Amino acid sequence: MSELQIGFVLFPNLTQLDFTGPLQVLSRLPRSTTHIVAKTRDPVPSDAALALMPTTTFKDCPPLNLLCIPGGFGVDQAIEDEETMDFVRREGGRAQYVTSVCTGAFVLGAAGLLRGKRATTHWAYHHLLPRVGAIPEKARVVRDGHVFTGGGVTAGIDFAFTLMNEISGPQLTQTVQLGLEYDPHPPFDAGSPERAPKAIKSSADERYAHRIAAFEEVLGRVAPRL
Amino acid sequence: MSELQIGFVLFPNLTQLDFTGPLQVLSRLPRSTTHIVAKTRDPVPSDAALALMPTTTFKDCPPLNLLCIPGGFGVDQAIEDEETMDFVRREGGRAQYVTSVCTGAFVLGAAGLLRGKRATTHWAYHHLLPRVGAIPEKARVVRDGHVFTGGGVTAGIDFAFTLMNEISGPQLTQTVQLGLEYDPHPPFDAGSPERAPKAIKSSADERYAHRIAAFEEVLGRVAPRL
Repeated sequence: MSELQIGFVLFPNLTQLDFTGPLQVLSRLPRSTTHIVAKTRDPVPSDAALALMPTTTFKDCPPLNLLCIPGGFGVDQAIEDEETMDFVRREGGRAQYVTSVCTGAFVLGAAGLLRGKRATTHWAYHHLLPRVGAIPEKARVVRDGHVFTGGGVTAGIDFAFTLMNEISGPQLTQTVQLGLEYDPHPPFDAGSPERAPKAIKSSADERYAHRIAAFEEVLGRVAPRL
Repeated sequence: MSELQIGFVLFPNLTQLDFTGPLQVLSRLPRSTTHIVAKTRDPVPSDAALALMPTTTFKDCPPLNLLCIPGGFGVDQAIEDEETMDFVRREGGRAQYVTSVCTGAFVLGAAGLLRGKRATTHWAYHHLLPRVGAIPEKARVVRDGHVFTGGGVTAGIDFAFTLMNEISGPQLTQTVQLGLEYDPHPPFDAGSPERAPKAIKSSADERYAHRIAAFEEVLGRVAPRL
């Protein structure tokens, strides 16, 4: 069996945990090499203090078996960037697993890779999935054939374990889960729009409103290319 | 109110999610600056494919209000590195919040910062906490006064939300939790040594055995300095 080539795509202002969560899990797949791919090898700024170091470039990256696109506020620029989208279309067109976390789904979608596919994304952007031809499904992880999408940010960890189970089965998955002590106990039950306190949800909706409006404009520009 | 100076300490071969999980949460604390501190500004290799970019050095870092030490296999070298330990002792001696994730607890411990403190760490190393003067407590997050410790790897996310709640209260904490969609649903219930299937746990014990033995030797060398 040949090596599994895993590639995470970086772009400026991605949400770093969208990437680093799945990276921690998927980089433990046996007989795999993980590539962190960007336009250049320069560090890529994230939404937190951490700049992310690519290991290769769109030009130099070998053909991928597993393509994973994180999300974040930088997605709006990423989907208007030809070089990024050319790479996503090229590798997404031939990868065995085409995947995203959070609003990375819109990068896949803008590349035409979610047409007619059931998919999920961050809860605040979920209703926009049809704009890139996807069928929105409210779930933390959605699989439709070879396309795996995760919900917002921390859903990337559940997504990665789901994908690992598909690729390598339950023994490895549970072994890695135990190693990473993934037995989550959030101090509050506020992580979903359905269960967060109403006041928290309303103020989040208010804060997201202008970002969502701006993002809809971007989708308006890319959608005709689908 | 002056700005909260948050500092994460990097060292070679840390487990990147020990750091990037809490980073995602804590960097959203209002009126705060996050420093990623290492010996030099060169990228620091992690256990996954990602090299981590410091934002400052031990020498240039301003006084910290919140010190956080991630863990990983590199901890054994970190606790024998004078420069790293001098920084941890210096900042840990005056920070308002002295914290660790995973085996980062042993870095705090080797610096004498856990003497007589209740603490937690990765489950496989938990029994070694008394070797650095700590009182082991089986919990995902343990607080003893100004010392907050988290369990293995992904426990860092629960740890960070707990700490955020202490610093800024439940409204911000739940808002950030909703934003990061932290509503975890692991595909298996195998993330704790108590609930993982017996065969998974046994083979993990076997795999960890030589690492734990090697780590005990390191602790034997640093312990007399306590």
